[in-house]
This record gives sequence, C-alpha cells and structure tokens, in this order.
Amino acid sequence: MTAIRLYDLQVRDDRRPSPFCWRIKYALAHKGLSYEAVPVGLTDIPAIAGGAHKTVPIVEEGGKTFCDSWVIADHLDEAYPDRPRLFGSPTERELCRFVELSLFMSAGRALLKSYVKDIHDHLLDKDRAYFRQSREKLFGCTLEELAGARAEHIDSARAGFDSVRLTLKGGAPFLSGAHPGYADYIVAGFLLWIASIGTAPLLKSDDPLLPWLDRVQGLYGGLGRSVPAGALAA
Amino acid sequence: MTAIRLYDLQVRDDRRPSPFCWRIKYALAHKGLSYEAVPVGLTDIPAIAGGAHKTVPIVEEGGKTFCDSWVIADHLDEAYPDRPRLFGSPTERELCRFVELSLFMSAGRALLKSYVKDIHDHLLDKDRAYFRQSREKLFGCTLEELAGARAEHIDSARAGFDSVRLTLKGGAPFLSGAHPGYADYIVAGFLLWIASIGTAPLLKSDDPLLPWLDRVQGLYGGLGRSVPAGALAA
Repeated sequence: MTAIRLYDLQVRDDRRPSPFCWRIKYALAHKGLSYEAVPVGLTDIPAIAGGAHKTVPIVEEGGKTFCDSWVIADHLDEAYPDRPRLFGSPTERELCRFVELSLFMSAGRALLKSYVKDIHDHLLDKDRAYFRQSREKLFGCTLEELAGARAEHIDSARAGFDSVRLTLKGGAPFLSGAHPGYADYIVAGFLLWIASIGTAPLLKSDDPLLPWLDRVQGLYGGLGRSVPAGALAA
Repeated sequence: MTAIRLYDLQVRDDRRPSPFCWRIKYALAHKGLSYEAVPVGLTDIPAIAGGAHKTVPIVEEGGKTFCDSWVIADHLDEAYPDRPRLFGSPTERELCRFVELSLFMSAGRALLKSYVKDIHDHLLDKDRAYFRQSREKLFGCTLEELAGARAEHIDSARAGFDSVRLTLKGGAPFLSGAHPGYADYIVAGFLLWIASIGTAPLLKSDDPLLPWLDRVQGLYGGLGRSVPAGALAA
C-alpha cells in the first residue's frame, strides 16, 4: 500500500473545519486507511500538485492527486475493494448524492449566511482578504451585514436539518441504518464544520441530532472528538 | 403464490391518484408480481379487513392485510426474496426514507396547499364532506381560501423538487442510478398524484423532471402512462 496524503484546510488554533475534508477523514477511517494529514490554508491550494485543483480535500497517492470529495470516495472504493465499501451499491451512492444535494438546498445557503463571518474570522491571516472579497461578491453585501441578520438565518439553517431528524426518528442509530455510512459522514461534516468555527449556537440543547452526532464523533477511536460539539447547542 | 389484492384509492372518472398507492403499484411491478386492484373511496376504507386500517394502500395476501407503504414494501421484499429487491441493502432503505421525508419537508405542505381543493373536487361524491371537514380543520381555513392563494404555493412546491433535479443532473437516468428503484417510485408517486387531479400546472415545460418522469411512466409496460403527464407542465 502506498502512502496516502490528505490536504486538509487549516484555520486558527490548528482547527480543521472543512465539511468536505471531514467526510473524507471519515471515509478513510471507514476503510481503515491511515494517512498523513497536511494542513493548508485556502491560499496554499494553488501550490498543490502544480495548481491542478482549486479546493480541498485533495488526496495524493502513488504520485496521483484526487480532488473533490466524490472523486476521492470513488477512488477509495475502487482502489481498496477488499475493505469496507463506502457505497454498498451504485444506488446507495446516488442516494447519498441526494442527501448532500437536499441539504445544500434546505440548509446550505442559510448555514453560509449564518456563519460566513465566523469562518472569515477563524481563517489564517493570509487567507482573509481573498475570502472576504469572494464571499462579499457572492452575497452582494458585507460579511458584517450578513452577521447582523443572522438570527433568522440560523433558525432557517436549523430547520434545514428536519429531514435528518425525521429519518433518525425511525429508530436506527445512524442515518445509514444500523451501521454508519457515507450519508452520516456528509451530515456530520456539516455539523463539525459549524462546531469548529461558530460563535452562535446552531441547535437547541434537546436536538435529536446531538445524540446521533455524538455517536458519529465516537467512531474510529473518537475521530470527531477533536471538535467540541458543545459550541453547537444552546 | 397466493393472490395479491391491492386496495387503491379511486376518484372521479376512475382515476387512481394516491401517491402512496402509486409507489406500491410500481413496487409490485418491480418485483414482477401480478395483483388485483380493488378501487375504493376514502370512506370505504373502514370497511376493509374489519376496519383494521385507516389509509390506503392496503395489500391483502394469504388472509393477511398489510397497510402503510413501508410495511408493504418490506413485506414484498421478505415474502419474495428471489425477485428483484426493492431495497438492495438496509442502508438503501434508510436513504429512501430520507428521500421521502426530505420531500415531505421541501414540497409536501406546499403541494397539499396548492392542490387540496383539486383533490376534493375529484373525489367521489360520498367522500367529499369527510375530506373537506378534515382538511379545513388541518389548515385552519376553507379549501376555497387555500385555492385563492395557490400561485405562490405552486412556486414553492415546484422549488421543493430541486434536490431531485440536482441529483438527476449527475447524468444517471434514474434517481436510483442506472436502474429504477424505490426512490424513483416515491418521487414519481408525488408527480402522478398531481398529474391525476391538478387543474394548474406544477412544472414548467422545460423541467428536467419531465424526461425522467417519462422514463418512469414507460417502465413495466407503460404502467404510469394511464396518467397523462401533460397536465403537469405549462
């Protein structure tokens, strides 16, 4: 087996907030693969692999690089077919895509609006100017203006996870059923992201997402415990 | 093999609009099982199986009755394990539940508000008073008041399918991937329901849902073609 290197977004205090990197950290752990995590700032990404990729996660293995969490997950299932599969079937993979896309629609924009200034404030100094400029262009207003109106965006973002709450209400310990799977890693990635940088709680203290997130954080030797989930809930 | 009987909601002109019955008609076809469809009005349901069930679909087989689409789907996979499975894995089943629940959240209430008066108007005469009373209590206003404000509810209901559109944008012919599956039947059930009774179009004529729905309608000898999808789109 060749060495695997994962380029992982780094912010202040060596936190690693990227939701897309989180799902790949869980994917690597699911498959029992060890790797070297290489912390990078946003503005370091163009220097990786000759500027071939614009976002993290990037996985480097055997002289090749793989970018985009879906490309990486497919690569891992293809390169290590004898290890636990991330997608038990092509249908599972499509339905996991639906999970991601439905959460983008129901919660994604509201999450960004709620926490984009927190993300900015946690970035490494060298990354802030680029981030502020690109996000203010995206939203058509300043980060401070977004932060000022965030109470309603947080309410909307919280409600955007209702589909997950209802599914878990069926009684299974994980969104994927009796065992954790990629759909869990997708959703946990979103929440660990907010837990890493949020300065206002996203969830209520009795949210049924919290015991589920605690189970996910406890997987693989407590992989997700490096992020204190306490900041997520009021 | 014992005979299977499916109690299917009937409305005017012998239309069969129930979204939950549609997914079971597709489930039976997916498994290659033939059945006798028994048309029933809403107010006939308490007379079935000694009043054991409150909703359709109800499947009767070998002297037993099964109610609730999930119970029926599980029964079919359990009773006919040698036929194509509805759920290739327990994870697929959980993710299909997520598909249903996320669409309830994103589109369900807006669909009901948009089309509840159309549903009422298509019911058999004997079913209308019960339906009007229960739905006006649910929404706290008359069906006519809901119908008067439906343009914005239709916009909201249409947007509620964006997660499906985005998933299909990945290029697979079905929501479940290369082959149709229960997630397709869930979503198609919602659309065939509206196509059966709607008097205002839900979709735009260039909606990417339409070619997908056409594929689903064409399955199993054109099972869904009994519903003209033309009424769905402007």
